[in-house]
Amino acid sequence: MNDAVSITRDLVRCPSVTPADAGALGVLERLLKDAGFEVHRVTFGEPGTADIDNLYARIGTEAPHITFAGHTDVVPPGDEAAWTHGAFSGEVKDGFLYGRGAVDMKGGIACCVAAVLQYLADNGGKPQKDGRGSISFLITGDEEDISVNGTVKLLKWCAERGEKFDHCVLGEPSNVEVLGDCIKIGRRGSQSGTLYVDGVQGHVAYPHRASNPVPDISRLIVALSDEPLDHGSAQFQASNLEFTSVDVGNTASNVIPGQARAKFNIRYNDNHTQETLRALVEERLVKACGNRIRARIVWEYSNSNVFVTKPGAFTDLAVSAIEQVTGRKPELSTSGGTSDARFISSYCPVIEFGLVGQTMHQIDERTPVSDLEKLTRIYRGLLDRYFV
Amino acid sequence: MNDAVSITRDLVRCPSVTPADAGALGVLERLLKDAGFEVHRVTFGEPGTADIDNLYARIGTEAPHITFAGHTDVVPPGDEAAWTHGAFSGEVKDGFLYGRGAVDMKGGIACCVAAVLQYLADNGGKPQKDGRGSISFLITGDEEDISVNGTVKLLKWCAERGEKFDHCVLGEPSNVEVLGDCIKIGRRGSQSGTLYVDGVQGHVAYPHRASNPVPDISRLIVALSDEPLDHGSAQFQASNLEFTSVDVGNTASNVIPGQARAKFNIRYNDNHTQETLRALVEERLVKACGNRIRARIVWEYSNSNVFVTKPGAFTDLAVSAIEQVTGRKPELSTSGGTSDARFISSYCPVIEFGLVGQTMHQIDERTPVSDLEKLTRIYRGLLDRYFV
Ligand SMILES: [Zn+2]
Ligand SMILES: [Zn+2]
Repeated sequence: MNDAVSITRDLVRCPSVTPADAGALGVLERLLKDAGFEVHRVTFGEPGTADIDNLYARIGTEAPHITFAGHTDVVPPGDEAAWTHGAFSGEVKDGFLYGRGAVDMKGGIACCVAAVLQYLADNGGKPQKDGRGSISFLITGDEEDISVNGTVKLLKWCAERGEKFDHCVLGEPSNVEVLGDCIKIGRRGSQSGTLYVDGVQGHVAYPHRASNPVPDISRLIVALSDEPLDHGSAQFQASNLEFTSVDVGNTASNVIPGQARAKFNIRYNDNHTQETLRALVEERLVKACGNRIRARIVWEYSNSNVFVTKPGAFTDLAVSAIEQVTGRKPELSTSGGTSDARFISSYCPVIEFGLVGQTMHQIDERTPVSDLEKLTRIYRGLLDRYFV
Repeated sequence: MNDAVSITRDLVRCPSVTPADAGALGVLERLLKDAGFEVHRVTFGEPGTADIDNLYARIGTEAPHITFAGHTDVVPPGDEAAWTHGAFSGEVKDGFLYGRGAVDMKGGIACCVAAVLQYLADNGGKPQKDGRGSISFLITGDEEDISVNGTVKLLKWCAERGEKFDHCVLGEPSNVEVLGDCIKIGRRGSQSGTLYVDGVQGHVAYPHRASNPVPDISRLIVALSDEPLDHGSAQFQASNLEFTSVDVGNTASNVIPGQARAKFNIRYNDNHTQETLRALVEERLVKACGNRIRARIVWEYSNSNVFVTKPGAFTDLAVSAIEQVTGRKPELSTSGGTSDARFISSYCPVIEFGLVGQTMHQIDERTPVSDLEKLTRIYRGLLDRYFV
């Protein structure tokens, strides 16, 4: 039973609530081994974190190499009694397959696997008739929680083995309302920091002997909030800086405090790198401070860098496969939250396309069975177009 | 022994650390009764506070009525072992009288009493030879701590008895560096409040769906801090508003918070009353908010209203008495911290003139014996000029 619905159901029945595997990767291992893949199970761990199962499987040894990425871990089911059908039942009812991970993203993985197995069966068991070409799977059990022992380490492990990826399809639920409405081709970067302003503490009755950091940090907040970081780019909306908190914590109404601090977060587009962005904000801060205000920024560590897969041959091919099955021309979007695509983008162009995200992370997560069938045909169409 | 040094020493030897009386009012009661005063000991208390002894003594029944005000309670001595001479010894050494309260303000009270006793002895035991005129003492044991069961209630008690004061001298240590440098004739008012700004909480990735109160409260803080409340008045420096804290308390770096608040304190002069001041700040807030920002101020209760005794016949008379003894023309000041003068000012004009404040509230609080003698002569000179 190598169809997408069966594979989805087999995966959903493994209660792989992050960081547990619960047999999910074993389901894939069996199917891929049977189809001729060389399958590696790789476990990563570090002090203070759970050991995590990951899977890397490849068929073929030469370029072009397309990899399908995904995660088999799921978020907790919440109140299981509230589910119309069991959270790990994989039950099909009235045209829907129910269960945690149905759309995020066991269903997406199942469609990739089903499409690849069909494609290989129709092509003599090889990516290309000439013996060239490679297809691989890059599947982690650590995406929904800390994302430390998953895709980041698996990519590094692959690189150390000499694996080279030409393109990646990540089967996360990219569609907003209906299958075919959206391909994610990138994400804005995220960078947080804390702004500190030093004044001189004193008594409110003698302000000339003190220097109040409260109006000063207020001036800086206004200056940094008001000046746009850019006006957007071809693939992105404008970058944006938001102050998320400002705090002094002084409870004495007769005391001018000695320091104030404000926390901010920036969502930035491909007009910037993390380095140029920080430099730009620091430069504006210096300007806003003039010779008088003493301020500094402490930047937080961030691995959410901006990335984008520029529209071109690869995205065209995906759009064409989607249009043929759904009749819809998907938007190439860079909005939304983070995924492992931010890590994969350092190795090769990556697009995200999967099921419809509406019920993800909710009670009664479910997907129309027809979407599983259509998504399998889309991935198959993509393979047909990819290997010439 | 009715001289100022003896009376100071007798008072210092009563360890009347607030709220204890420790016999201090009894020292005054005996002296004043002997001089023909009608003396009342009045105890005030309320739930949650200590009962406090107060003293009201008057000689004469008619106007003009001058009252000498003061407090016999003192702040704690701190580390008594650190004192060069005992904190409650009243010891005289090398021309200084040592002890807690020596300058704040047992010494000041002693000088008033000594001056009044001398004056009466020299004038047939009456304020005025014609039988008119009154002199009184308004002494509390509750000034250094919460000031709830002291001067406020004693003044009310007097008013209910039909007592009418024409002028008041409060013997607090008004001089900054040397006897005769400063008469306090008023104080700025103090008014605190909290500014609240409401926004709409949301995710930093979708700022158009949220409304961030942090830049908005920052704009209001800058606007309210930058525009002067006034440019001073004849007796006062300019009023001043200081923001003492701004707080949000949001720790989630991806969340735009729903509310921000900022605390402020205003020190204001006689261009304003509490009511007109609040109205002015509210009006400026409305202007700064425009049609967009939703903000409000919650005002704190305050009994520190602005007051001033306008320079005139009464202050001239004090200046003249001071100049004659010290050769210095005192500044008429409205700066510094609060005292019971703010309460007395609702009943009659009040000036503060006493010893030099340098060592008050410190280890080795002390006054030159010569200052006690001079201050007694100043008060005596004031009485000579007051009663014609
Ligand atoms: Zn996911
Ligand atoms: Zn005092």
